[in-house]
Amino acid sequence: MPQQIPEPINERQFAELLRQRAAGAGRPGLRQGIGDDCAVLAHTRQRDVLVTTDLFLEGIHFRRNWQEPASLGHKALARGLSDIAAMGGTPRFVFLSLGLPCKSSRRRSPQWDQRWPQRQIDGFLEGFFRLAAASKVVLAGGDTGSSADGFLADVVVVGDVPRGQAILRSGARPGDEIWVSGTLGRAALGLTVLQQGKRLQPSHAAFQAFCYPEPRLRIGQYLLRRKLASAMMDLSDGLSIDLARLCEAGGVGARLDQDSLPRLAQTPLHNALHGGEDLELLFTVPPKRSRLLPRSIGGVPLTRIGRIASDRKLWLIQGNRKKPLPILGFQHF
Amino acid sequence: MPQQIPEPINERQFAELLRQRAAGAGRPGLRQGIGDDCAVLAHTRQRDVLVTTDLFLEGIHFRRNWQEPASLGHKALARGLSDIAAMGGTPRFVFLSLGLPCKSSRRRSPQWDQRWPQRQIDGFLEGFFRLAAASKVVLAGGDTGSSADGFLADVVVVGDVPRGQAILRSGARPGDEIWVSGTLGRAALGLTVLQQGKRLQPSHAAFQAFCYPEPRLRIGQYLLRRKLASAMMDLSDGLSIDLARLCEAGGVGARLDQDSLPRLAQTPLHNALHGGEDLELLFTVPPKRSRLLPRSIGGVPLTRIGRIASDRKLWLIQGNRKKPLPILGFQHF
Repeated sequence: MPQQIPEPINERQFAELLRQRAAGAGRPGLRQGIGDDCAVLAHTRQRDVLVTTDLFLEGIHFRRNWQEPASLGHKALARGLSDIAAMGGTPRFVFLSLGLPCKSSRRRSPQWDQRWPQRQIDGFLEGFFRLAAASKVVLAGGDTGSSADGFLADVVVVGDVPRGQAILRSGARPGDEIWVSGTLGRAALGLTVLQQGKRLQPSHAAFQAFCYPEPRLRIGQYLLRRKLASAMMDLSDGLSIDLARLCEAGGVGARLDQDSLPRLAQTPLHNALHGGEDLELLFTVPPKRSRLLPRSIGGVPLTRIGRIASDRKLWLIQGNRKKPLPILGFQHF
Repeated sequence: MPQQIPEPINERQFAELLRQRAAGAGRPGLRQGIGDDCAVLAHTRQRDVLVTTDLFLEGIHFRRNWQEPASLGHKALARGLSDIAAMGGTPRFVFLSLGLPCKSSRRRSPQWDQRWPQRQIDGFLEGFFRLAAASKVVLAGGDTGSSADGFLADVVVVGDVPRGQAILRSGARPGDEIWVSGTLGRAALGLTVLQQGKRLQPSHAAFQAFCYPEPRLRIGQYLLRRKLASAMMDLSDGLSIDLARLCEAGGVGARLDQDSLPRLAQTPLHNALHGGEDLELLFTVPPKRSRLLPRSIGGVPLTRIGRIASDRKLWLIQGNRKKPLPILGFQHF
């Protein structure tokens, strides 16, 4: 019988529906299926394969008048690399599928839509391949086609980790410390500028975070190598909703320390708690391991922001005050 | 410097541009990059990993008023499985990324577009998962989002082959026989019916080929196991253009025997030569191995349709007559 889908449905409900149809971990060859940043495929005595796939759709994930084309190419790949980083993995190959808008998909000899002239496509690929080279990722395949409306990309990144060592979302235990890399809410700060109809200048504190976010591959690999993290994921939709997902996966709760959240002076608390697209790493560290954690890795600071609890509730703590953490975050639908 | 793209560009030119940017085979870990049905990733002492990714876009690859939704879900997966079959591989995992149209992508709480009601999405998934189960393929991940206009899917299939044994496009040698599975031009026959504004009834000879094409996994695996094929690819865009690609990859030419092309009585020669989407296998067999080839595998006939030549030219032969093979085939752009 077909699964009944409530209408309207949101992304979370749809992902849940797919999860019901998907095989769980424990299936031979599949260490981790839907529900983490990457799928983990068991493959050799030494290494597990990681696979992640990310859609990047015009009008949904980006607007082309907000960013230069190279930034779009960079971000399309950065999102997939960040998923690999969130498992502690090393990216190896990328597959790029592009749908390019044509004037009319139903005409025999469609032209490129003038809104995506050649230099924009050049720019997109330039940003994509610059990050690929910097990350030592090789383009291994893909697909192309025309799209009826708007530019779209689907990016598949294949990576690997030492066998059985991928850092899953589900490993957090009560008492573990909660840590983040970098600063929070910077991409949201950039979004605010753009939503006000202004341009995001390269000199702005949020420019790099919004236009050229750096996937935290080095940090993820460091944490895996030293066995420092019990659970990890990347912050793509916002700290509050992503922390809720990490806690749900582990069957635990959290106490978040408001004053310790790393944010720029100009970043409102709301952006630090709920802003999306930071691509920072959120991870938990068993208390006995935390003294081994450096203050920064590759120049990116690491900050302890709270503690895992056993009660499945999420609280925001400030001094003696304690209130339920609002779960807002970013939903694409 | 950014690559200059001529405008307008077609799919082949764009794929060529990506190929220039991609790493070639010989790169450590990459046995075969862009330019075959799948990428081949070297991974263990025993097995190589295959990865293929296919876009499936409304208005480009399908129209929803032509087929029932289950057929669309089936075809979206069948195209990826056919790529695995074309390497002689065994599919293991699939990743499904879906973009579902909402009324307006820019509104805060978009609803499903009424043109894709719940029962159509149910139907799509039903067709997709029915074929996945029949092919013993496990859903391991994916992504979802809303699309500004039209339904889209990107399907990634991961499979494997015994190490170093993937059957590439490039292996054809002068003197090899050219073979195909099944019958040619059946999907194009179905398309003709639909383009005339008629419905394609389940009783029509082309219904299964157009709506529920069967990926030839068993045939591909048989050919690999017995080491019968020197080169192989699947017929997605039409015999003439796909044979031209196989010959180009091998640096060879071909003589096609017009009278031997397997087609139904009602299939025009044009459809057999140039019709797309058949998902049959096109492969070459060294003459010394061809006596080991059965007449059919799993009830699907195998037919010899020509011979590989050394001169890089493609000829269509009928009796004593010989003319250049027109390369038409299907281009999505």
